[in-house]
Amino acid sequence: MKKRIADEEMSMLKEIAGAFPRHPDQYNLLSEADAEILNFHTKNIDYLVLKIDGLFEELQDKLYEDPFLIGWMGITVTISDLAAAGSKPIGILLALQLPNHLSKNKEWLGQFQNGINAACTKYGVYILGGDTNFGSGFSVTTSGVATVTSGKPMLRKGMSAGELLYSTGKLGIGNAFAYSHYFDSSIKINYKPIARLYESSLIKEFATACIDTSDGLFPALSIFSEVNDIGINLSTPFTDILHPEAMQVCHKAKLSPWILLAGPHGEYELLFTIPKERKPDFEKKCISRNMTMFYLGDINKENNVRFVSDTQSITCEPAQISNLFLEATGDVNLYFKLLMKQQEFWSSHKN
Amino acid sequence: MKKRIADEEMSMLKEIAGAFPRHPDQYNLLSEADAEILNFHTKNIDYLVLKIDGLFEELQDKLYEDPFLIGWMGITVTISDLAAAGSKPIGILLALQLPNHLSKNKEWLGQFQNGINAACTKYGVYILGGDTNFGSGFSVTTSGVATVTSGKPMLRKGMSAGELLYSTGKLGIGNAFAYSHYFDSSIKINYKPIARLYESSLIKEFATACIDTSDGLFPALSIFSEVNDIGINLSTPFTDILHPEAMQVCHKAKLSPWILLAGPHGEYELLFTIPKERKPDFEKKCISRNMTMFYLGDINKENNVRFVSDTQSITCEPAQISNLFLEATGDVNLYFKLLMKQQEFWSSHKN
Repeated sequence: MKKRIADEEMSMLKEIAGAFPRHPDQYNLLSEADAEILNFHTKNIDYLVLKIDGLFEELQDKLYEDPFLIGWMGITVTISDLAAAGSKPIGILLALQLPNHLSKNKEWLGQFQNGINAACTKYGVYILGGDTNFGSGFSVTTSGVATVTSGKPMLRKGMSAGELLYSTGKLGIGNAFAYSHYFDSSIKINYKPIARLYESSLIKEFATACIDTSDGLFPALSIFSEVNDIGINLSTPFTDILHPEAMQVCHKAKLSPWILLAGPHGEYELLFTIPKERKPDFEKKCISRNMTMFYLGDINKENNVRFVSDTQSITCEPAQISNLFLEATGDVNLYFKLLMKQQEFWSSHKN
Repeated sequence: MKKRIADEEMSMLKEIAGAFPRHPDQYNLLSEADAEILNFHTKNIDYLVLKIDGLFEELQDKLYEDPFLIGWMGITVTISDLAAAGSKPIGILLALQLPNHLSKNKEWLGQFQNGINAACTKYGVYILGGDTNFGSGFSVTTSGVATVTSGKPMLRKGMSAGELLYSTGKLGIGNAFAYSHYFDSSIKINYKPIARLYESSLIKEFATACIDTSDGLFPALSIFSEVNDIGINLSTPFTDILHPEAMQVCHKAKLSPWILLAGPHGEYELLFTIPKERKPDFEKKCISRNMTMFYLGDINKENNVRFVSDTQSITCEPAQISNLFLEATGDVNLYFKLLMKQQEFWSSHKN
């Protein structure tokens, strides 16, 4: 049951879906088919890779308010997962639930489309089609389709003790952005993560496992630990891997760096492991391709996560930190209290 | 930013996504990868067909309340579009936004999963993965992937004057269901449409254009008319094409049959055209495969829709009837008034 094709709807559809360039292999023009059709005759595909993801809490909690950022993030969250799987995206389907009052806000819709367009251009993907609903809800769901045409896809699973853990970028800016939004609007954080699609193709040549930090560092480590039955020793000091803007929040709010890495609002870097013996070759290739990767630590057989916080060595259960957000059941103030309580506990139990 | 993998989340994820069988070609197990990966080595694909669709208004307006029906319809709406494109579905990604209070309602979640499972089994498709969010919103979005491995996909576009219009089933039960829900709960309508996937493969051999009646007959005709620049003469009396349960509503509520075909809540039949000269061959094949198709009328060069209502000949603009729902901006009571007003106008302008 949907409003379709009558003049008003048609112009709305054209306004949202029609604002994007068509994929060169798309068989149908806009609204010429019940589904979106891609010419696949010439493709030699080993794996088809699919992902659905979306913005829900971020919109309901008003963490994202800038329409350009909403459009950009809608695309980025899904492309980031496709990159973590080592696949090359083809296109995106959009399912939009927009509040009624935005249906006539051309300025908002224009900026939203600009964000989508900018992200699609950045990642070299196309909007293949979509479905727009105006009503009381607000969500941006994207479904991405990608392929692997050589080698194997990357999984979260596959790492072994002794391997080395890297990140494609410095971490913590996602949580810094959330902190500034909820607790201190005087701090300005430039949050516009870029899915690591470009880096993914190099990582795929070396990695034994890969995940994106869409939920932040510790939640990603918790998944790695659970799926691979391993432990992680983060030997690099957090001051060396914290994003400068996250560091600024630490200083201003007097927070321990681990708090900016606790989640759940991530930075969409890729986190991956490589065998120790491949380190020289990997780092050489990174330099030749002008990519900076950050060494975080190594994998061990124990089922815990170790790190240094404010000169203190901490060993915790893999899910201990990421569980705090679940425990807070989405209440940001309660979550922050639980983080502070954890920090106090560790401080008072110094060896 | 999402709640991930910590114990509670993991069990919830397993409860919803893990309740479904895995596709035999799926490369990754549950939560082993950031995206869903299908082994495609052996596939010889001509076209990849994609669709995203969902239940939004139906849930917000409480038109669908039975959790089994919600699960069933979530799958059916997308499979129906893939069938209309003449493609063979592989699988579905699920993006769920469920109200918080349902997160602990095992009975509701179980019935919802049963509905999804029953539909997947019926259509021979698999849930490939998904994303579940609990919060204030309520929507079920499905993204389907399908292939065409021989011949051409079907489009809405391609029909010419002189061709014959058919439907895979009798029409109007969707609107009868909505009428009973909103206006007369003493009428019980058995609404559980089946996407015409099985019929689609035969239709694809003959059809020049195809669309599903997800929004009802008249909205589909309006699209056909606009996309193909043609007119439609519905020569078969509506009493012969109206579903018996829709007919029952007409009698009880004293409605003209066209009102049950006006939209916007459809029956998910396929509507398609075939060349006149292929009629004997088509009907022979339908009989041999035990399929009943309903001849509705033929295509002409005029830009209007003609039909007979209560022995009166009506000629109207193609979008005139489907526009009434847009005019009512989603207000069901106003919509019903506009339908009655249109009927009164036609009755008072009898030749």
